[in-house]
Amino acid sequence: MIVIPLIERKRDGEALTTEEWVSLMSAYAAGDVPDYQMAALLMAVLLNGLDPHELAALTDGLWRSGRTLAFGDGTTPRVDKHSTGGVGDKTSLVLAPLVASMGAAVPMISGRALGHTGGTLDKLESIPGFRTDLSVAEMQAQVERIGVAMVGQTAELAPADRRLYALRDATATVEAIPLMAASIVSKKMAEDLAGLVVDVKRGSGAFLPELEETLELAQLLVRLGTDNGCPTVALLTAMDRPLGRACGNALEVEEAIAALRGEGPPDLMELVYREAAEMLTLVGLTEGIEIARADAERAVTSGRAAAKLQELLEAQGGNPNLVDDPAGLPQAPVSAAYEAPQEGWIEWVDPRTVGLAVVTLGGGRQHITDRVDPAVGVVVTAKPGNRVEAGQPLASVHARDEAGIAAGCAALAQAIRIGDEVPPGGGLPLISHRVTAGAVEILA
Amino acid sequence: MIVIPLIERKRDGEALTTEEWVSLMSAYAAGDVPDYQMAALLMAVLLNGLDPHELAALTDGLWRSGRTLAFGDGTTPRVDKHSTGGVGDKTSLVLAPLVASMGAAVPMISGRALGHTGGTLDKLESIPGFRTDLSVAEMQAQVERIGVAMVGQTAELAPADRRLYALRDATATVEAIPLMAASIVSKKMAEDLAGLVVDVKRGSGAFLPELEETLELAQLLVRLGTDNGCPTVALLTAMDRPLGRACGNALEVEEAIAALRGEGPPDLMELVYREAAEMLTLVGLTEGIEIARADAERAVTSGRAAAKLQELLEAQGGNPNLVDDPAGLPQAPVSAAYEAPQEGWIEWVDPRTVGLAVVTLGGGRQHITDRVDPAVGVVVTAKPGNRVEAGQPLASVHARDEAGIAAGCAALAQAIRIGDEVPPGGGLPLISHRVTAGAVEILA
Repeated sequence: MIVIPLIERKRDGEALTTEEWVSLMSAYAAGDVPDYQMAALLMAVLLNGLDPHELAALTDGLWRSGRTLAFGDGTTPRVDKHSTGGVGDKTSLVLAPLVASMGAAVPMISGRALGHTGGTLDKLESIPGFRTDLSVAEMQAQVERIGVAMVGQTAELAPADRRLYALRDATATVEAIPLMAASIVSKKMAEDLAGLVVDVKRGSGAFLPELEETLELAQLLVRLGTDNGCPTVALLTAMDRPLGRACGNALEVEEAIAALRGEGPPDLMELVYREAAEMLTLVGLTEGIEIARADAERAVTSGRAAAKLQELLEAQGGNPNLVDDPAGLPQAPVSAAYEAPQEGWIEWVDPRTVGLAVVTLGGGRQHITDRVDPAVGVVVTAKPGNRVEAGQPLASVHARDEAGIAAGCAALAQAIRIGDEVPPGGGLPLISHRVTAGAVEILA
Repeated sequence: MIVIPLIERKRDGEALTTEEWVSLMSAYAAGDVPDYQMAALLMAVLLNGLDPHELAALTDGLWRSGRTLAFGDGTTPRVDKHSTGGVGDKTSLVLAPLVASMGAAVPMISGRALGHTGGTLDKLESIPGFRTDLSVAEMQAQVERIGVAMVGQTAELAPADRRLYALRDATATVEAIPLMAASIVSKKMAEDLAGLVVDVKRGSGAFLPELEETLELAQLLVRLGTDNGCPTVALLTAMDRPLGRACGNALEVEEAIAALRGEGPPDLMELVYREAAEMLTLVGLTEGIEIARADAERAVTSGRAAAKLQELLEAQGGNPNLVDDPAGLPQAPVSAAYEAPQEGWIEWVDPRTVGLAVVTLGGGRQHITDRVDPAVGVVVTAKPGNRVEAGQPLASVHARDEAGIAAGCAALAQAIRIGDEVPPGGGLPLISHRVTAGAVEILA
C-alpha cells in the first residue's frame, strides 16, 4: 500500500476517501503499513481533523479489519455501555449483569487501565480464574445462552483499532477527539448491537476535562453510532471526583458486588440505575426511562441482578460464591487508614491524584504493556462537602508493603483538600447532559 | 529518554528547549527514540512550526550527534555550496574543483538523488573507482593536501540528520521548511566552514516551487548559518526548466567536465561563475564579486580548474584521464534522438517530467534505498524560446534497452511543449534574488 500520498493529503488538510480509509486500516491490521507512517498520519489527523465522511470511513475500516459478532434477527436485542474512562468507575461491572437480568443481551468488550484511569478488563482479571479471552464463537454462544459476556479485545475483534490505540498511546495522539470516537464506536460495531449508551466523563479526572470538548465527543459518538445503525445515547457525567469509593481492581469488584446487592455508594447506584434505564429504553424493552429505572431497582432488590453475576462468573471460570463472600478476591498484604490531618470541610477529592496513587501502588499502568497488581488500591470514603474532624479516617490504603502505605498516604494528602469553610456545592452534577441524535438535554 | 511529553508540547504549539532538542537528536542518533515517535513529532513540527531558538537548537543537535571536521585557525579558509535540488544541476561537480583551484578549500558533503531531482553523490559514484566513503580523518587530510574532497554523508557525520532525512522521506514531512533548513545547515556545520553559498531553486522543478516559500527557506538558511558563525549567502535560481542539457548521472559528469574546460552550456557556465565568485568573496579571498568572477573564468580557460579535478579524481580512486577522455564513463547500451513532432516554438521544458523520465530509465530513485543506473538519462538540447522544425532533434535518450528508449521518448513528448507562437520571455531569470544576513537583493 502506497501511504505517503495519503499522509501528504491529510497533512495539507484534504480528506481521504472511504475506500482509502478502509484499505489503510486493513493494511495496517495486516502489518503492511509501518508504525512511523501511521504515526505521522495520526498527528496530521489530530491537528487537521477529520470530516464526518472520513470519520465514518475510519470507523468502518477499524471494525471491518477483524471479525464481528452476528446474532441474526429475532434474537434478544443487544445493548452495551461504554465509558470514556475515569477513576473508581466500576459501573460496567454492575450494569452488564443487571441489564442482562432484565432481559437484554450484553456482549461487552472492555479495555485496560491506562494512565490515571482504571479499566474494566483489569478489574475482571482480578477475579481468580475469570477468563476474559473468549473467542468470538465462545462469546457469541455465551451471550445467546445467559445473555451476557464480558471480554477483552482479542486479535479477532477490530485488530486495527487495537494496534492503533497502542500507537496513539506512544505518540501523544490519544487526545484526538475523532480518533477517540472512531476507536470506541468501532469496537461496539463489532458487537452487533441494537443500542449503545456512552458515559462521557467530564471534569479534572477525565481525558477531556472541559465541557465543550466533552460535548463534542458525545455528539460525535451519538452521530457515528446512529449513522451505523446503532441508536446511541450519551450521558455527560461527573469525573471531578472519584466515582463511588473503591479505586483499584479487586477493591472495585468488591464494591460492584455490593452495588448489585443494592449496597453500593449512592453516586454509583444513581449512575447505574440511570444507565440501565437508558440501555433498556434504547432497545425498546420498557415503556420509558422512569419505568425502566424502577424495574432496575427491583432487579437489584429481588436478587436477580446478583444471580446473573453468579451465572457470568460460572460461565467464564470465576467462583460464583464470590457474590456472597467477596473475601475470595485478592487481598493486599497490608492496609492502613488515611486520617484527616486537620478538621474542616472536604473541598476537593482530586480524581487524577487518586488514580495516580493507584498506579504508584502498582494497580494501574503508565504504558499499555505494564502489568497490574490486582489487590492494591485506595478506598476513599470522604466526599466533597463532608465535615471532618482531625484524625477521622478519610480513606484506606491497600498496598504490597509499608512503603506502599506511605506512598499511598502521601498521595491522598495531596488528593484530599480540606478547607476552613463550607465549600460551595459538591462539584459537578453527577449526570449533567443527555445527548441524543436530535438534541442535547441539560439534566442538572 | 521520555519523548511523549515533548511530542505533546509540539502538538499543542509550544516550544521545546535547546537542551531538549539536543538530547532528543543525540538519543535518536543512538537508536533510543523509536521512529514512530519521531514521525509524530516531525508532523507536529511541520504543521505547528519551529521558533528561531528551536530551529537553532535542532540544527545544533543534528550536527553534534556526530563527529565534525576541525581544521584549526590559520589554515586555508573552507567554503562550500549547497543546492536545494533540481534537474540537471551538476554545478557542485564543477564548483568544487574550480573554487579549490582558486585557493579556497572545499570539504563537500553531498546527498543522493531523490524523487525527480538528481544527487551529486550518485553522479560522483558513476565515475568508475571513485570512492565517496572517506572517513572524517581521510577527508580532512585530503582537504589539507589538495584543497578539495567530495564525499557522502557517512555514519560519522550528523548521523541524526541522516536517519531523520530517511524518516521524513517516508512520512511526507520533507516539505517542512525549518526541517529542510536544519538538515542543510547541520551537515555544513560539520564541515567547519568559513562561508557557505546556498543555491535555493525555485519554479516547477524545485521542492518548493513558489517564490514566497523559496525566499522563506533562503532567509532561514542565511540566518541559521550566520548565527552559527558561518557567513551564508543564498541565491534564488531558476528551476522551471532543467539546468544545462544533461540529466542522468554519468551524462552530467561528462557535462561538468566540459564546463571545467569552458565548454559547458551557457546557463550552467553563468551559474558556476556567479556561485564561485560568491564563495571566494564570502571567505575574503578576493576584492569583490566582479573580480572573483573574472578570476574564475581565468581558472577555467587556463586549465587550472580541470587540473584540480584530475587531482581530485586521483585522490579518491577515479581515473584522472577521464578529464581528457570522458569515454571512460559508463555508457548506456542504447541511445536515440527525440525529434520535434511539429514545428513551432519551445514553450516549456518541464523539469519535473524530465527528472521523472530519468527515474523511469533507472537513473534516479523513488525511495532513498533504491539503486541507480549510472549510465542512463536524457540530454535535452532544446531550451524555452527556441524555434524548431518538425523532425529536428530536441534531445537524446540513453537507456538500458529499447523499452527504455520508448519510455524516455514518451516522457520527453510530455515534457517538451511546442506552441505556435513566440513564447513571452524564456522563463524565470537564471539568478533572481540574492539573500544576505541583512537584505534581499533582486538581481533580475
